[in-house]
Amino acid sequence: MAGGTPEMSEIAEAIRQGATAFLKREFSVDVPIIFGIALLFSILFTPWAGLATLIGATMSSFAGLVGMRAAVIYNERVANEARLAVLDGKGNAEDRAGKVAIRGGSVMGTAVGGFALLGLLIVYLVVGMAFMFARPENLVETTSIVGLKFVMISQVLVCYALGCSIMAVFNRLGGGIFTKGADMGSDLVGKTELGIPEDDPRNPATIADCVGDNVGDVNGNGSDLLESTIGAITACTILPITIYTALINSPSPMTNTMVTRMMEYPIAVAGLGLIACVLGIIFVLARKSIGKLARELNLSLWSSAGIIAVGSGVLAYFFFAGQSTVGSQFRFGWISPWISSMIGIVAGIAMGLIAERYTSDRYKETRKIAALSKEGPALVIVGGLSLGWRSCLPACLVLGFSLFASSYFSGNYGSAIAAVGMLSFVAATVTVDTYGPISDNAGGIAEMAKLDKSVRRITDSLDSLGNTTAAVGKGFAIGSGVLAALAMMMLFSNLDGSNGGVDITNALALFGAIAGGGLMQWLSGVMMDAVNNNAAEMVDEVRRQVKEKPGILDGTERPDSGRCVDICTRHALKQMVKPVIVSLSAPIVGGMLFGPLLVAGLLIGAILIAVVTATATANSGGAWDNSKKLVKATQDELVALYGEEQWGGMHRATVIADTIGDPFKDVVGPNQDIMIKMMATVSVIMLPLFTAFNLFSVIA
Amino acid sequence: MAGGTPEMSEIAEAIRQGATAFLKREFSVDVPIIFGIALLFSILFTPWAGLATLIGATMSSFAGLVGMRAAVIYNERVANEARLAVLDGKGNAEDRAGKVAIRGGSVMGTAVGGFALLGLLIVYLVVGMAFMFARPENLVETTSIVGLKFVMISQVLVCYALGCSIMAVFNRLGGGIFTKGADMGSDLVGKTELGIPEDDPRNPATIADCVGDNVGDVNGNGSDLLESTIGAITACTILPITIYTALINSPSPMTNTMVTRMMEYPIAVAGLGLIACVLGIIFVLARKSIGKLARELNLSLWSSAGIIAVGSGVLAYFFFAGQSTVGSQFRFGWISPWISSMIGIVAGIAMGLIAERYTSDRYKETRKIAALSKEGPALVIVGGLSLGWRSCLPACLVLGFSLFASSYFSGNYGSAIAAVGMLSFVAATVTVDTYGPISDNAGGIAEMAKLDKSVRRITDSLDSLGNTTAAVGKGFAIGSGVLAALAMMMLFSNLDGSNGGVDITNALALFGAIAGGGLMQWLSGVMMDAVNNNAAEMVDEVRRQVKEKPGILDGTERPDSGRCVDICTRHALKQMVKPVIVSLSAPIVGGMLFGPLLVAGLLIGAILIAVVTATATANSGGAWDNSKKLVKATQDELVALYGEEQWGGMHRATVIADTIGDPFKDVVGPNQDIMIKMMATVSVIMLPLFTAFNLFSVIA
Repeated sequence: MAGGTPEMSEIAEAIRQGATAFLKREFSVDVPIIFGIALLFSILFTPWAGLATLIGATMSSFAGLVGMRAAVIYNERVANEARLAVLDGKGNAEDRAGKVAIRGGSVMGTAVGGFALLGLLIVYLVVGMAFMFARPENLVETTSIVGLKFVMISQVLVCYALGCSIMAVFNRLGGGIFTKGADMGSDLVGKTELGIPEDDPRNPATIADCVGDNVGDVNGNGSDLLESTIGAITACTILPITIYTALINSPSPMTNTMVTRMMEYPIAVAGLGLIACVLGIIFVLARKSIGKLARELNLSLWSSAGIIAVGSGVLAYFFFAGQSTVGSQFRFGWISPWISSMIGIVAGIAMGLIAERYTSDRYKETRKIAALSKEGPALVIVGGLSLGWRSCLPACLVLGFSLFASSYFSGNYGSAIAAVGMLSFVAATVTVDTYGPISDNAGGIAEMAKLDKSVRRITDSLDSLGNTTAAVGKGFAIGSGVLAALAMMMLFSNLDGSNGGVDITNALALFGAIAGGGLMQWLSGVMMDAVNNNAAEMVDEVRRQVKEKPGILDGTERPDSGRCVDICTRHALKQMVKPVIVSLSAPIVGGMLFGPLLVAGLLIGAILIAVVTATATANSGGAWDNSKKLVKATQDELVALYGEEQWGGMHRATVIADTIGDPFKDVVGPNQDIMIKMMATVSVIMLPLFTAFNLFSVIA
Repeated sequence: MAGGTPEMSEIAEAIRQGATAFLKREFSVDVPIIFGIALLFSILFTPWAGLATLIGATMSSFAGLVGMRAAVIYNERVANEARLAVLDGKGNAEDRAGKVAIRGGSVMGTAVGGFALLGLLIVYLVVGMAFMFARPENLVETTSIVGLKFVMISQVLVCYALGCSIMAVFNRLGGGIFTKGADMGSDLVGKTELGIPEDDPRNPATIADCVGDNVGDVNGNGSDLLESTIGAITACTILPITIYTALINSPSPMTNTMVTRMMEYPIAVAGLGLIACVLGIIFVLARKSIGKLARELNLSLWSSAGIIAVGSGVLAYFFFAGQSTVGSQFRFGWISPWISSMIGIVAGIAMGLIAERYTSDRYKETRKIAALSKEGPALVIVGGLSLGWRSCLPACLVLGFSLFASSYFSGNYGSAIAAVGMLSFVAATVTVDTYGPISDNAGGIAEMAKLDKSVRRITDSLDSLGNTTAAVGKGFAIGSGVLAALAMMMLFSNLDGSNGGVDITNALALFGAIAGGGLMQWLSGVMMDAVNNNAAEMVDEVRRQVKEKPGILDGTERPDSGRCVDICTRHALKQMVKPVIVSLSAPIVGGMLFGPLLVAGLLIGAILIAVVTATATANSGGAWDNSKKLVKATQDELVALYGEEQWGGMHRATVIADTIGDPFKDVVGPNQDIMIKMMATVSVIMLPLFTAFNLFSVIA
């Protein structure tokens, strides 16, 4: 299919089948849950809300599926291109294979950007083109058949966002438990006990690991970023509605045109971003760039950024110049939202550079972790944890300040538009994010198909090429996620008219904040435990197979990789449900017992813990990963310095630390922002219920 | 001196000298800093404020010093009593040695309770008996020579609290870096590389480890709990002043008697608690309790609790019955503060039981960690991290609910009085907390002086006896610390009259909250890194000594333990200053740039992260420690099941995890509550400055 050798095709086929089979079984678990939730919303509010939830889930699944299908095909294509280029011997192998990988990644990138906008379009069509004409009656309270009061268009939009979130968390979490259990199991036995290299075909868990890369790092990541985009745009679209309805009977109401423009602007920016990113990708693919792929990649990103910066300013002028800014909180007229979105972009880049600073082996932090490997695994682990924790201060200062500054210029709308600004790059960042696992898996196929070592070297260098861009992408994901969740929380407090703002010194709000913090940390613990359970069974299984079939190690017997895939599938499906259900129901239970103020506190507590956890786990994990690679890359020097045996100990120490980083950076970290957005979104949806009834207001 | 063998005396003397020398050098670093701060307060506010800061620091140092001097003497006495009792052969060795250990611990316990109250008394005398007579003019705003407005009595009281906090954090942190670096270094080389047991005299780091136990676990812990007590009482004393001054010109002011009573009540409860605890300790020491020491210990705690429960109710009646409750927020008259304090006590016990549930080897959580040791260190570590994270949910629910409930009955005063309730046991919990390291060190002396194995077995069993009580004590420490910090924060927002409460949806407050969260996590990272740096040098040093002097291992050469003590001292002194200075100055810088609202947010963010970090690190650390002990204790069974070699691997895995737990549970965890109180206290002190000037209000 992709023109590789028969071995390559056979392996690629096995990975494809494993990935497809897992997704089918995953759908069998999560689709009924989503239908149940959609039904609930249909009954409580309106069938349109239920339908929007389903559309959200569908878009999120589509983006992930399309991207993953492309990725499994491109895995093999990249390996093959590298193989052919090596045979050609023209010295441009890296360039040729790299462009194939970028092409593969760009399928996912554009799918995420495209499906997000497509879904929004359908949702707007579904609610009767309410957006296009924005007739005031669409922005006015409706009463559902069970007697709950809500605003049609915002309720439908948040349900669309929730559908995306739920699907994203299932994909991220299910895929994460699958892939990281396989990864840890294969590394712990393969590298530290048996001393065989990564992706060795003799390791029974290798195929499961490759399948996992596709279902976790590709599919999960795509759903995640689609969800971020939708979350940010939705918050940005609904905030003006709440201002509009709040001012509707005041002496100086917001104009109809202004509310429509404020709702349209984030969508226009996102659309512009998609076009800019596509242009940027075409630019990289079209240029001849021998040996300079990394520079080209960055150049492409910067040209996209330039288009977005200029274009969104022009858009702001056309949208807002000459409009009455009454109620909009725009401090300096039409330019305010543009400044806010630029603040978001700068903050996203800064957060990415901070991540780079802490996790790249070019800087002292990660080099220190690698140096600690002399003292054994314990100090590498403590050092890496400390590194992640320390990285929270600069990241939080940047994030907090950008929130403050963007709100200073355009009010709450400003912080939401900052998130939209960060996510206008989504197509480019997802392209690079996907390019990584595609190259990685191409390397896996090269290793398993026993291609020439030089092929593996090419794929390895491709994998490391996009690192800076990927770090920036991670900064964007965390930053935009937190800003979007905060915007949702502000939306929640705007909609809850019972109290102006959320007084955090109120004991009920504080109770909520402390409980929310504990809840978020519990969720992280449960996710990590799920990976650990999977990894533990995987370690036992790999050890068992190697022991019972000694022929596996000398290559005369084939390992039973199917059983490893089964174990991962079972753990993923069994353990992904609880955290999702708990995080969805906690705000509902809290709200029905103690009312909206407790829920607002709960959201704050959860968001604060999530910011810190997401930053710390991503950076600890990244630093461990890169320090392991550094110890491996400098093997010759280190062996000369300390001897073969001590180098072995150093490498083992970093491998152990890296396996701890696996659930950190690929399961716990990326799920933080999805979960807080999911909690904030479900709180906004259910607010009419808490307002209508809560036990505390009945008792007190 | 304590009647032991010459070897014992020699070792005890070495430990005593090491501990005293370290404290002297520590004082040379922290005393100038405290004098500088006192001078600053004298200039900004009043010399009385500076004096109160010095008194606080002095009390905190005294409590720690007296307790530590007792502990180093009792280390040897306990070992000797166990040795003599074994020689006697009457079978009551555990009982006899245990009582000696309790006597040793009770010195620290009563010192903490006593010095806290003594300091308060002196401070009240210093401010001219303002408390006794509570003349309105003492509760009215004064203007300092530099033009800042403040209330004399509350300013002096918070400065007293801050003095305690600063000294406590230096003792906890300096001692923690010292002891845990030594502990990690000695375990990592001794147990995992050389295979020699704990406290083996051949290990060069053993003496440093024992010195560290005294300066960290004994002296540091004492200062810490003294600080908690003072923090809670101070918050409780000043809150009524703020209510009084706020209502002074209203149509329904608070009565002079009521404000005095509200200020006196927490002190009365603390005094009652001290008496009750002393009675409880006498009760244990007086009874013959062969083989039932654990039960006696719990019985004593419960009888103290009974006295406090009944007594504080009687006090509440005498203090508040018949008084006008105008302004007091007492929902049900005189009984309200009593209910709030009982809620605090119940919450403290519940938090302790939760800790017990997650860390005791009698429950499945810790047993699962021990079982994971089969799969190597990585999964033990991930499992333990997950356990700590998951334990945050129940702990936070209890803490959050108790905060809410205690405030429901008595307003903000209620949550402060709940903290005082928890800390009324301080003398008993410190006694048991100190009893642990005394027994532990007695074991160390027994091991080093090569006493009969049975002596070590007795001290080991003593050490494990107080575990439940110690877990409950830790619950009290975290719970009361957080409540006291929150009370300080509420005080801050009460005093800041510019806005009613703290609206956390305000972008400035949110900026503060995110930055505060990042700051707290950074502080934890810096503390952990300090321990790690010390441990890394210690590992190198122990390896070097063993390599250069092969005679050490076969007992023919003496290790150079002095160098190990030096390394620890150097690291502790060098690295303890930065986190203290940063946590003190962060709220000041934040306040002077952005004003009080940002500082309020910063405190909230820091407190939320601290709650979660304190709980998670304490429980992860405890579970790793106990799973290591479980694997060691069930050695015979496990060897029969898996063979000697695999058992060795399992034990090594748990030892590695336990060394990660060292900085977790004994440095990062206990410093969380001190640091948040310190930040909240310094914010309250500096509030007049932020109100008079901040850059943001100038610009905006």
